[in-house]
Amino acid sequence: MATTAQDAPFRTETDALGSMQVPSDRLWGCQTQRSLQNFEINQPRDRMPPTVIRAFGVLKGAAAAVNVKHGALDAKLGVAIQQAASEVASLDLIDHFPLVIWQTGSGTQTNMNTNEVISNRANQILGHELGKKYPVHPNDHVNKSGSSNDGMATAMHIAAVLDLTELLLPSLQRITEVLRQRSDEFQDIIKVGRTHLQDAVPLSLGQEFSGFAQQLVNGEKRVRQALEGLLELAMGGTATGTGLNTYEGFAEDFCMEVSKMTGQAFVSAPNKMEAISANDALVFASGAIQTLACSLFKIAQDIRFEGSGPRSGLGELILPENEPGSSFMPGKVNPTQCESMTMICAKVIGNHTSLTVGGLSGQFQLNAFKPLIISDFLHSVRLLSDGMDSFRKNLLVGLQADGERIKQLLDQSLMLVTCLQPYIGYDIASKVAHHAHKKNLTLKEASLELNALSAEDFDRYVRPELMIKPSSKP
Amino acid sequence: MATTAQDAPFRTETDALGSMQVPSDRLWGCQTQRSLQNFEINQPRDRMPPTVIRAFGVLKGAAAAVNVKHGALDAKLGVAIQQAASEVASLDLIDHFPLVIWQTGSGTQTNMNTNEVISNRANQILGHELGKKYPVHPNDHVNKSGSSNDGMATAMHIAAVLDLTELLLPSLQRITEVLRQRSDEFQDIIKVGRTHLQDAVPLSLGQEFSGFAQQLVNGEKRVRQALEGLLELAMGGTATGTGLNTYEGFAEDFCMEVSKMTGQAFVSAPNKMEAISANDALVFASGAIQTLACSLFKIAQDIRFEGSGPRSGLGELILPENEPGSSFMPGKVNPTQCESMTMICAKVIGNHTSLTVGGLSGQFQLNAFKPLIISDFLHSVRLLSDGMDSFRKNLLVGLQADGERIKQLLDQSLMLVTCLQPYIGYDIASKVAHHAHKKNLTLKEASLELNALSAEDFDRYVRPELMIKPSSKP
Amino acid sequence: MATTAQDAPFRTETDALGSMQVPSDRLWGCQTQRSLQNFEINQPRDRMPPTVIRAFGVLKGAAAAVNVKHGALDAKLGVAIQQAASEVASLDLIDHFPLVIWQTGSGTQTNMNTNEVISNRANQILGHELGKKYPVHPNDHVNKSGSSNDGMATAMHIAAVLDLTELLLPSLQRITEVLRQRSDEFQDIIKVGRTHLQDAVPLSLGQEFSGFAQQLVNGEKRVRQALEGLLELAMGGTATGTGLNTYEGFAEDFCMEVSKMTGQAFVSAPNKMEAISANDALVFASGAIQTLACSLFKIAQDIRFEGSGPRSGLGELILPENEPGSSFMPGKVNPTQCESMTMICAKVIGNHTSLTVGGLSGQFQLNAFKPLIISDFLHSVRLLSDGMDSFRKNLLVGLQADGERIKQLLDQSLMLVTCLQPYIGYDIASKVAHHAHKKNLTLKEASLELNALSAEDFDRYVRPELMIKPSSKP
Amino acid sequence: MATTAQDAPFRTETDALGSMQVPSDRLWGCQTQRSLQNFEINQPRDRMPPTVIRAFGVLKGAAAAVNVKHGALDAKLGVAIQQAASEVASLDLIDHFPLVIWQTGSGTQTNMNTNEVISNRANQILGHELGKKYPVHPNDHVNKSGSSNDGMATAMHIAAVLDLTELLLPSLQRITEVLRQRSDEFQDIIKVGRTHLQDAVPLSLGQEFSGFAQQLVNGEKRVRQALEGLLELAMGGTATGTGLNTYEGFAEDFCMEVSKMTGQAFVSAPNKMEAISANDALVFASGAIQTLACSLFKIAQDIRFEGSGPRSGLGELILPENEPGSSFMPGKVNPTQCESMTMICAKVIGNHTSLTVGGLSGQFQLNAFKPLIISDFLHSVRLLSDGMDSFRKNLLVGLQADGERIKQLLDQSLMLVTCLQPYIGYDIASKVAHHAHKKNLTLKEASLELNALSAEDFDRYVRPELMIKPSSKP
Repeated sequence: MATTAQDAPFRTETDALGSMQVPSDRLWGCQTQRSLQNFEINQPRDRMPPTVIRAFGVLKGAAAAVNVKHGALDAKLGVAIQQAASEVASLDLIDHFPLVIWQTGSGTQTNMNTNEVISNRANQILGHELGKKYPVHPNDHVNKSGSSNDGMATAMHIAAVLDLTELLLPSLQRITEVLRQRSDEFQDIIKVGRTHLQDAVPLSLGQEFSGFAQQLVNGEKRVRQALEGLLELAMGGTATGTGLNTYEGFAEDFCMEVSKMTGQAFVSAPNKMEAISANDALVFASGAIQTLACSLFKIAQDIRFEGSGPRSGLGELILPENEPGSSFMPGKVNPTQCESMTMICAKVIGNHTSLTVGGLSGQFQLNAFKPLIISDFLHSVRLLSDGMDSFRKNLLVGLQADGERIKQLLDQSLMLVTCLQPYIGYDIASKVAHHAHKKNLTLKEASLELNALSAEDFDRYVRPELMIKPSSKP
Repeated sequence: MATTAQDAPFRTETDALGSMQVPSDRLWGCQTQRSLQNFEINQPRDRMPPTVIRAFGVLKGAAAAVNVKHGALDAKLGVAIQQAASEVASLDLIDHFPLVIWQTGSGTQTNMNTNEVISNRANQILGHELGKKYPVHPNDHVNKSGSSNDGMATAMHIAAVLDLTELLLPSLQRITEVLRQRSDEFQDIIKVGRTHLQDAVPLSLGQEFSGFAQQLVNGEKRVRQALEGLLELAMGGTATGTGLNTYEGFAEDFCMEVSKMTGQAFVSAPNKMEAISANDALVFASGAIQTLACSLFKIAQDIRFEGSGPRSGLGELILPENEPGSSFMPGKVNPTQCESMTMICAKVIGNHTSLTVGGLSGQFQLNAFKPLIISDFLHSVRLLSDGMDSFRKNLLVGLQADGERIKQLLDQSLMLVTCLQPYIGYDIASKVAHHAHKKNLTLKEASLELNALSAEDFDRYVRPELMIKPSSKP
Repeated sequence: MATTAQDAPFRTETDALGSMQVPSDRLWGCQTQRSLQNFEINQPRDRMPPTVIRAFGVLKGAAAAVNVKHGALDAKLGVAIQQAASEVASLDLIDHFPLVIWQTGSGTQTNMNTNEVISNRANQILGHELGKKYPVHPNDHVNKSGSSNDGMATAMHIAAVLDLTELLLPSLQRITEVLRQRSDEFQDIIKVGRTHLQDAVPLSLGQEFSGFAQQLVNGEKRVRQALEGLLELAMGGTATGTGLNTYEGFAEDFCMEVSKMTGQAFVSAPNKMEAISANDALVFASGAIQTLACSLFKIAQDIRFEGSGPRSGLGELILPENEPGSSFMPGKVNPTQCESMTMICAKVIGNHTSLTVGGLSGQFQLNAFKPLIISDFLHSVRLLSDGMDSFRKNLLVGLQADGERIKQLLDQSLMLVTCLQPYIGYDIASKVAHHAHKKNLTLKEASLELNALSAEDFDRYVRPELMIKPSSKP
Repeated sequence: MATTAQDAPFRTETDALGSMQVPSDRLWGCQTQRSLQNFEINQPRDRMPPTVIRAFGVLKGAAAAVNVKHGALDAKLGVAIQQAASEVASLDLIDHFPLVIWQTGSGTQTNMNTNEVISNRANQILGHELGKKYPVHPNDHVNKSGSSNDGMATAMHIAAVLDLTELLLPSLQRITEVLRQRSDEFQDIIKVGRTHLQDAVPLSLGQEFSGFAQQLVNGEKRVRQALEGLLELAMGGTATGTGLNTYEGFAEDFCMEVSKMTGQAFVSAPNKMEAISANDALVFASGAIQTLACSLFKIAQDIRFEGSGPRSGLGELILPENEPGSSFMPGKVNPTQCESMTMICAKVIGNHTSLTVGGLSGQFQLNAFKPLIISDFLHSVRLLSDGMDSFRKNLLVGLQADGERIKQLLDQSLMLVTCLQPYIGYDIASKVAHHAHKKNLTLKEASLELNALSAEDFDRYVRPELMIKPSSKP
């Protein structure tokens, strides 16, 4: 999009406290410029996440549409605001949003940044000059029927819903699907089970992977439960939740408009005091996300341990070789995707802690930790989404079972002795196992040495494939 | 209940590793005794929570019933086991469960403690001697169709559901109801709003309390969402989730039996690998509980700040005087219930962190942080339940609004000037406010001094009760 | 100790708010009784930790001694207070301290509990009646020169120092010493290294254990650094840190007295405002403790993985068999001490989170999360102390290396090929490794098959013992 | 600096797995390119922090210097490597380090990125072509005497020390100094104290600020304690801590060289196994940083509450008006710097949690959460540094006390009655206080009404300035 490249490098913008010089090619105004100077904190890394800017674009466009509909805003101005807002929502104007999250805790400065950019851009569209706040005024028109408090609370929920539904859930479904496929492919590979890291009764590799898939299926259900609260919007509450300076019908119409624009079923929060003074819905959603992180941590841990080796580890899985592990050491494939994933999960857990500290710190009519809360939340969402995609593409799809190694471990397992109990009795079975353990024999070798049963009988009875499900009757 | 008081102070109990001396008046056996000696860690404070013992009692009784029904267990033994198990479930035998949670991570030792106590007690009921494991054997009969792994996972969910439904939800509903009542009583008390701790546009005290109530209504919804996953039981998965040594129908019948015994709608977990190797459902439920803690922290903070004073604070609320604040200082009522509640909430947040670390640490077919996870979870549930009851009874019920102080603050608020804008215009209204601020006048005084409007008009226009809701039209 | 067993089951005690009935055989008074009723929260599990009561005993005795010395307290009363206080410090009167930590955030109620018990007990000693506050008055005499705020802050530091020096540091030194011994014993056992869980260049098992020992040596240093701040006492600051109602010299003399009584070098905090309004020294000390938990978590994890098996794991270590792992499965030794230890470490990390939330929540002249903070801290200290003792006694001392298995893994390791590079060149060495990997041969077998060098040369060159240290020159 | 702008947009780089196309104007090689494609995770926001790149530059330069000195590296190559490394250290080449932290947990890919950039740049300096690894080879020469494992561990400590000493400590000292100055300026302003948020005995505003300053003085001490462990470097341990492929003297000379280059007293870690397999020193240092965050949270909270108003808050402090609070509402100055600061502190606490999860997750010879750990640590350091500067400049320097308001609150405080006790006795004093409270009078008014003492006597006795320190004698 074209920004006005004026001759002078700066233009003057004003606010209630006076005036500031703003770069001529930027659409923001005085309050944004002040914030830039008052909060020089980890620029530019910690800027407000783009999805929040997108959500503010949606919000301002929707508010303008409703205000025009109700006659609260001149239609011509409304159209210009809606166009400018849609440019914000598309992130075409993202370079005009330079503020970090370390600002006022209501996100007021980002709300004002949006108001300033939209009013300047709308005025530009209408053929007027930047910086004059005419005919579209950032407060009087762009912010109409809203305040920073309900606006930021609303933008947070819109942003969270958008990133959850557009990033996280699709990534989650894709990885779940691959885990299900791998589970199916691995269903006949029976392996030694491990509990307490100790050899245990067998299961199929497919069953193991079905457990992974189930963790993620449950994770999706939890995220969807959390979405319910996020679909409630604070808009219409204005500064303290009472709705002062708005009008009957605004809140509901606003939600319908946002729903239309996003395809998500937003509804007006039943109690705006709650929706502004607390951000509990995001704390809860973060808990759902964090539970997913626990699941993924476990999955990545198991896979890297089962892929450990090549000679001195478990060696049951063969991980794709995405990068050189050691130029000298064939077979050394570092589980880098697992390491990346577990670091991501640790980060998500940390994000949940900071978000929680923010979440409990609301005071009176406002929770003033909003930028932190939404930034941590969206960071977790993005990390898990990207991380699941990376893990799926670069690890799960190419993962192979080392069937030979798995069979070798299973065959030498002492746990299979439980199969023999019905045929040779507990006491003899126990003796066979102890003999095998002591002499470092397989169960079959030990059985034969002790004349417990014949080789044919051993092969007939010791059938792990019968050990991986309940019997048909007691 | 009567334990056998034998003459000798100890009797001999045996297990696979040999024998141990057990106090004669205790029903536990050898494995429990070993664990007592091997894990001398913060005894007795950190013993396994009673609700877990209760859940194991339910579990063992239900398993025996199903096993008898399917012919997998002799009916006579089954009846004795069921009676003994019901004594465990009633907590009559709680003194026979001396183990701390710092044991094996599968809870095996508590499972064995249960098996030992039930078999000894059942044998006692059947007229046999303690310590002989005859006719009821702890492993062969009491543990039948189960293993420690699915047993502990199952007991955790049963315990969590019981404490959530019997302790937390009732406490939560009671406190919500009181907040709703107070909100109704306070609905006509209009007060200055506060955002960023700064004076803001007004709301009613009733609206403020309706926000508190809404937080808790949402909290209840979240807890109920989390309950869904907790109602899934791992039983029937045995050691690695495959169901080895159990039989078709056992898992489903078991859940029906437990449902009958508890009145809760338990179902068999769709994937037992997941249900044993992960405890994600508890991580998620802890997230729901933790969100409730954030809500309660905020509510308690607001109330203690609004009750601050008596002279140098906000002074809008009068807290009940439950204990001497200062013998010398009349009116000094320390917000002790708020302090207790906020400490509880901080603890719940810490419990969530440790539970999360446990939750992500499952390995292969078992999450071996189970005792920690359930202990932290139940601790949080109990603390919030007791804390909400205490806060309700000792603070909310007796809380009073200082209507005079609230009115005084509202009357002197400069924010009311927004009412005047339609009548005297933005510019004059702004002048009035600045004049009042500079000269330390009320808005009315300033209006009169500046001849902005008459006293009658001021009183007619400045009506906070009109400022606490949307207007009927834009 | 003897409590007065009067005929009536209750006696009347009074405070500023009126009177209460107190059990006749208890030494506490009216304020304690009120607190018992106002805070029925997870009784009795969450009572104030005994070390805090001990510290209050020390504190009250020291204050009385200093007050007598300066003529601020009648000597006869002082002697009785000191005797009663020493009974409190010895924990002989612990049953008279029934309050939970979920009380007022300044710990006032426990301070008053102490004042009441000491005054009643001192009056008893002096031949007077309980409940009359005569001649020793709980506030006027026992609390003299102190307030709850500086008192609780002081008791917290005393308690922390006592448990750190008497419990944690000795346990830490004992386990470090055992790790050092085991490191020495294992120094000639060369094993395959593992990075990213993948086979890596070798090190000795002794080196591995020296790393564990070093972690704990560093841990001890960190705890000692944290002790410095804990040795500063708030006493003398009274309610707001200013020292009102105390006198010059009191604070310093008090610290000398406490130092004499405890053998620890306590000093008066340089700024009492800080010492009461914040509890940063405990947050920092908890961070040190938590770092130790990270170390122990890692050590326990490594040991359980290296002890995994018996057949399908790494199998390098043989853990002592403390309890039956599986009655059927010889060789299955569950790493129960490791599981207990890692759960403890997770708990310590959670305690740090709640303590941190408490630590940041001070307001104005008081941090009112004190009972939570000290309770979490002492819980962590106790858990780590007991846990390290248990881990040492029940695991480390009896731990054995499976030298044969370790050698077998080392011999088959492909990483040893790096030894050959100087003799046969990079290219041939690389070919040997790939051949071995592909054909599943040992390096020696592969070398001979490829005629890379003779068997004698192989044995001469491939000497892992030369690979575990820097060369003498480049 | 000039990168070779070749005609073709890409050149071919190779590694052990084959070849990749690399942008012609980039100095990185094949492994970096692979990582870019394998880890598309939150690019570019989560790139490896620049200070880590700087530290790697220092590291590679120092290693080359030592290798040349010991004859392990050709001097000519060494000089070129040192020059290229210094360009890396100066961050002139930062655009050539595109990798995110979500990579392999050893940081190998960033180590290889550094090796590739330095070798390419050194070859360029020596007049050779990019991508040929000649004459300077990334592994053979740039990585000489090091491995990724000890390299990353070393770079982390160097980076942490640099940012702590260059960013955090200076910011901390500057803000402490301002707090001390403000404390001095405020020393005669006596105000009501507040404990439990309730009015308490007075202190001077200077004393209050001295408490803040002391918190930060202690914070600096803690950071310095933590620095000790960070000054220990792992270099010389190579892959598993044993020092294979390095030589006697390398480790010590390396530390001397790094010390020379940075002005910090680095020493060789006493045990390299510990230094690579664990990152405890950073966990502990994060704990120190996190304690500082608790201090700053408390300070910011107090200031914003004491600045609350303008009419319905405490109003004791006047915060600088940095941006419009409300265009309509004079006197409404939102405590935006406090909000920013408290959000930062919450973030630091969350970073500590994720860092801790990473810190406890080391396995065998490597902690593979290194990029996460250092990223979180440096983020916290940067946030606190920038945050303290912003808070100091934009809030503390311009903060004013509202002396009139403070005096008014003090004068009406009932707590001053304690001054009167020596003159009129406890009983009368208490009556005066209750009368004042009940009738809403000042103490003076109540005294006169009750004829407790004369106005002159009241003014003579009630002197708050005598209440803010210990008396000269009991």
